[in-house]
Amino acid sequence: MKVLVWNENRHEKTNAIVTEIYPEGIHGAIAEFLQDDDVQVKTATLDDAQHGLTDEILTDADVLVWWGHLAHDEVADEIVEKVKQRVLDGMGLIVLHSGHFSKIFKSLMGTSCDLKWREAGEKERIWNIDPTHPITEGVGQYFELEQEEMYGEHFDIPTPDELIFVSWFEGGEVFRSGATFKRGKGKIFYFRPGHETHPTYHNKDVQRVIKNAVKWANNTNTPTHVYGNAKPLENILGR
Amino acid sequence: MKVLVWNENRHEKTNAIVTEIYPEGIHGAIAEFLQDDDVQVKTATLDDAQHGLTDEILTDADVLVWWGHLAHDEVADEIVEKVKQRVLDGMGLIVLHSGHFSKIFKSLMGTSCDLKWREAGEKERIWNIDPTHPITEGVGQYFELEQEEMYGEHFDIPTPDELIFVSWFEGGEVFRSGATFKRGKGKIFYFRPGHETHPTYHNKDVQRVIKNAVKWANNTNTPTHVYGNAKPLENILGR
Amino acid sequence: MKVLVWNENRHEKTNAIVTEIYPEGIHGAIAEFLQDDDVQVKTATLDDAQHGLTDEILTDADVLVWWGHLAHDEVADEIVEKVKQRVLDGMGLIVLHSGHFSKIFKSLMGTSCDLKWREAGEKERIWNIDPTHPITEGVGQYFELEQEEMYGEHFDIPTPDELIFVSWFEGGEVFRSGATFKRGKGKIFYFRPGHETHPTYHNKDVQRVIKNAVKWANNTNTPTHVYGNAKPLENILGR
Amino acid sequence: MKVLVWNENRHEKTNAIVTEIYPEGIHGAIAEFLQDDDVQVKTATLDDAQHGLTDEILTDADVLVWWGHLAHDEVADEIVEKVKQRVLDGMGLIVLHSGHFSKIFKSLMGTSCDLKWREAGEKERIWNIDPTHPITEGVGQYFELEQEEMYGEHFDIPTPDELIFVSWFEGGEVFRSGATFKRGKGKIFYFRPGHETHPTYHNKDVQRVIKNAVKWANNTNTPTHVYGNAKPLENILGR
Repeated sequence: MKVLVWNENRHEKTNAIVTEIYPEGIHGAIAEFLQDDDVQVKTATLDDAQHGLTDEILTDADVLVWWGHLAHDEVADEIVEKVKQRVLDGMGLIVLHSGHFSKIFKSLMGTSCDLKWREAGEKERIWNIDPTHPITEGVGQYFELEQEEMYGEHFDIPTPDELIFVSWFEGGEVFRSGATFKRGKGKIFYFRPGHETHPTYHNKDVQRVIKNAVKWANNTNTPTHVYGNAKPLENILGR
Repeated sequence: MKVLVWNENRHEKTNAIVTEIYPEGIHGAIAEFLQDDDVQVKTATLDDAQHGLTDEILTDADVLVWWGHLAHDEVADEIVEKVKQRVLDGMGLIVLHSGHFSKIFKSLMGTSCDLKWREAGEKERIWNIDPTHPITEGVGQYFELEQEEMYGEHFDIPTPDELIFVSWFEGGEVFRSGATFKRGKGKIFYFRPGHETHPTYHNKDVQRVIKNAVKWANNTNTPTHVYGNAKPLENILGR
Repeated sequence: MKVLVWNENRHEKTNAIVTEIYPEGIHGAIAEFLQDDDVQVKTATLDDAQHGLTDEILTDADVLVWWGHLAHDEVADEIVEKVKQRVLDGMGLIVLHSGHFSKIFKSLMGTSCDLKWREAGEKERIWNIDPTHPITEGVGQYFELEQEEMYGEHFDIPTPDELIFVSWFEGGEVFRSGATFKRGKGKIFYFRPGHETHPTYHNKDVQRVIKNAVKWANNTNTPTHVYGNAKPLENILGR
Repeated sequence: MKVLVWNENRHEKTNAIVTEIYPEGIHGAIAEFLQDDDVQVKTATLDDAQHGLTDEILTDADVLVWWGHLAHDEVADEIVEKVKQRVLDGMGLIVLHSGHFSKIFKSLMGTSCDLKWREAGEKERIWNIDPTHPITEGVGQYFELEQEEMYGEHFDIPTPDELIFVSWFEGGEVFRSGATFKRGKGKIFYFRPGHETHPTYHNKDVQRVIKNAVKWANNTNTPTHVYGNAKPLENILGR
C-alpha cells in the first residue's frame, strides 16, 4: 500500500526545539516509522508546488496522513476540495493533533471541530476503550505521554462511528483522542497526540497506533455503487 | 416553540399539477399542519429578500424545515453559512426529500449525499425501525404511500446517529428514509418522502412524523460549553 | 408518569455512615427529589416480598431506577426475567453506580459489565459530552464531586447508543459515566455516580441528571410492531 | 486462522430436499468454501458429544459460525454459557439466518431477536449499505437470491455497531440483513440468508460475504485490559 504523509512543516523552520526533535520534519519522522515491506511512503509539505498534492500524487495514495497547525488558512480551497473528493472516493485519511482545525477535517465533519487546549506539558494517559479494534492491536490498556499539550472536551465533532481512545490529563480534562468516521468510501481516523515541542512521534505506542491506523484506513474494496436515475427490477414495474 | 418552514417554491410557479396539490405551496401545506397551540410557524421562500433567511429570522427560529430541489445552486453561499452556524448553535433542522442535495445538508454531512432515484409513481412502504424514538410516536409498524418517487441505496451519508425509517419500493430498492444526526448543538432529521407531484404532505402519517420531528429537534438545552485556552484544575498543576 | 425506585437497601442497615447520609435510604433520597407534579414515585427494596417487584407494580411503572451492590446474587432469577421483559416491552430503566454488576443490567447488555474501581475518596469531574441530549438539559460543561469511588476503563459494555458523560478521576482514570442503550421498546440509561458512603444523591447536578433521565426514558410510544408469520403485500405475490 | 462451523444438522436428517441441496450438511457446505491456505476449518453438530463444543475445541477456535433452527432449546445452557464466555474473551461469532433465535445470540444481544417471516420462496435483493467495510469487499452494490424465506422488520436487536446489508423482499418487507456487534473482546456478525430448502450457501456472493466476515471477526489483538481494584497513578494520590 502507498501512504502519503503531509505536513505543514512551518514550526520546523522557525522553532529550534522542534527542529531538534524532528530534524527531518514531523513528516520525515512519521514516514520513517511507517515505511516497511508492505508500505511505501512519500511525503509532501505546504510549501511544495500545489502543496505537494497534485492529482497524480493524490490518485496514487491509498492513505493520507495530515499534520497542520499554524497555516490551515494557507491551504488552498481548491486543493482541499480535491483531497476531500479523493477521501470520498476511497482514500483513507489520518488526521493528527492540531489537524482537528484543518480545512479538510472540518469540511468532512461538518462541525466547528473546536476544543479546549492548554500548553503546560502535562502528563497524558491514553486509555484504550476498544479491545476489538485493529487500531489497538498490540496496544495495552493505556499508554502514557510524560508531557503533552492538553486537549479537552467538549470536542465539537459528529458522533464518531467508533470511539477508540479517551485521554486523561493531569490538569482535570478528558478527551476523545481516537475516533473513526466513514465518509463516502473513505475511512478517517482522528488521533490526538503530537504537539510539535514534545517528542511524541518518537513514542513507540504512538507509532504503533499510527501504523495500525494506516492499515485499517486502506479501503481495498472496489465498490460498484451506482447513483442517479435507476431502472426498476425487471418484470416488477411492467405497467 | 418557533418553526420556520423554508421552501424553494419554484415547482409551484411552473407546474400546474403541483399548484393543484399545494395551492398555498409546499411551505403553506407544511405550515398548516405544524401550527398548533405550542408551535408558532412562519414560512420563507427562495425568492424572498435574502431567501427570507435574515439574521433576525434565523435567530428567532428554534427549528428550520427545508424543502428544495431545482434551485439548490441559487441559494447564496453566505446564507448557507449563516444557516449552518445557527444549526451548530442549536437550531434544529428537518431536511425533506430532495433537500438531500441542498448546500446546507451536504455541508453538514461532509459527503456527496448522492442516491438512486426513479420517477415512476411506485408504492412506498416506510418501515418503522425504532419503536423507542419520539419521532415514531403514534406511527404504526409501517405506513404506505401509494405513489412516490423512488429513492434507493446507496445513500451517501455518514453513519446516522439513529436510523428510524427504512423504505421499501415496488421496483426493487430500499432506502434509509428517516435518520438523525447531531452537529454541534443542533439536531438534524432527514425524512425522505415528498415528491412535488404527489400529495405526500397531505398524508396523515407523514404529517405526524414531521410534527414529532420538529418537537424532537427543538434543543432546549442552554449548554455552557467553553472552548479555547483553559485553566487547569486548581492545585493540581501547581508546579 | 410513574417511577419506581428500587434499592437493595443493605448498606443502610449495617453502615452508620450510610444511614447518616441517607436516613430514608438511598431509595428515599432519590424518590424525594424525583417527586413533582408530573412524576409519581414509589419505592421498593430487596427485602420486600418479591423484592417489591410484583407483576402489578412492574406493569404500573413507566420507569424503574435501580441501585444495588452487595446482594446482586440475592435477586431472584425469575424476577430479573420479569423486569427484563418489562424493559423490552417499554419500561424505562435507569441503572445507577454499582448496578453495573446487577443481573438485570448484565442480562440486557450481554457482556461482563466489568470495570476498574478504587475507594479513595477522589475528586471526580463529570464532563458533558453531548450538548444536544435531553439528559444534559441544564447541566453545565462539567460538574464535580469532591469525593467519589473511582470507576475506570475498560468498562466492558456494548457500544452505547449515545455517550453522554465521561468522568475524569484524580488518580489517573477515565470512565464512560453516562450512556444510553435501547433494548426492545425500552430505553436504558447507565449513570455512574453514587457510592453509598458519599452524599452523591444530595448533589444538585446528579439530581438534575437523574430527573432528566427519568423523563427521557419514559417511552410514550404505543408501537404496533407485529412479529411472526406475515402475509405479503396484496397483489404482489399473487402467484 | 481456525474456524469452527457449528450446525444443528437436523433438517438434513429428515428432509430430502435439504439432503439433496446439502449432501454433506449445511456445515459441510460452509466448511468447504471457507477452507483455504490461511483458514483451517473444523465442524461440529448438535448431536456430537457436548454438541462438539468442548473446552478444548472452543479454546482452539478463532471464529465460530453458527446455524440452528429447529432445536435451539436442545442446546444445553452450560454450553451456551461457555460459548458466550469465549466470545467475550475474543472468539469471533458469525450467526446465520435462523440462528437469530439461538440461545447464544439472544444472550449476547439482550433482546428477543424476534422478527417477521414468510416461507414463499420470494426474490431477495441484498443491498450493500457500507462500501467501506471489509465484509463487503468484492461484493457489488447488491446481489440477488431468486428464492429465499422472507425475514422482515421489526428485527428486535440492539442498535448494530455497523449496518452493512439491508434486504428487499418481493412481498413488501425490508430487513437489516447484515449487522455487526462488539461484545467484550469478541466481534459478532449476523447475516440473514440461508433457509435450508434453498441452495443459498452455494451462492457465490453469500460465500464471499461469509469468507470476508470470518476474516473480519478474527480479533488478533492481545489486549491486556485489567479489571477490579486498581492503584492510582503514582504521586498523584499520595495523601
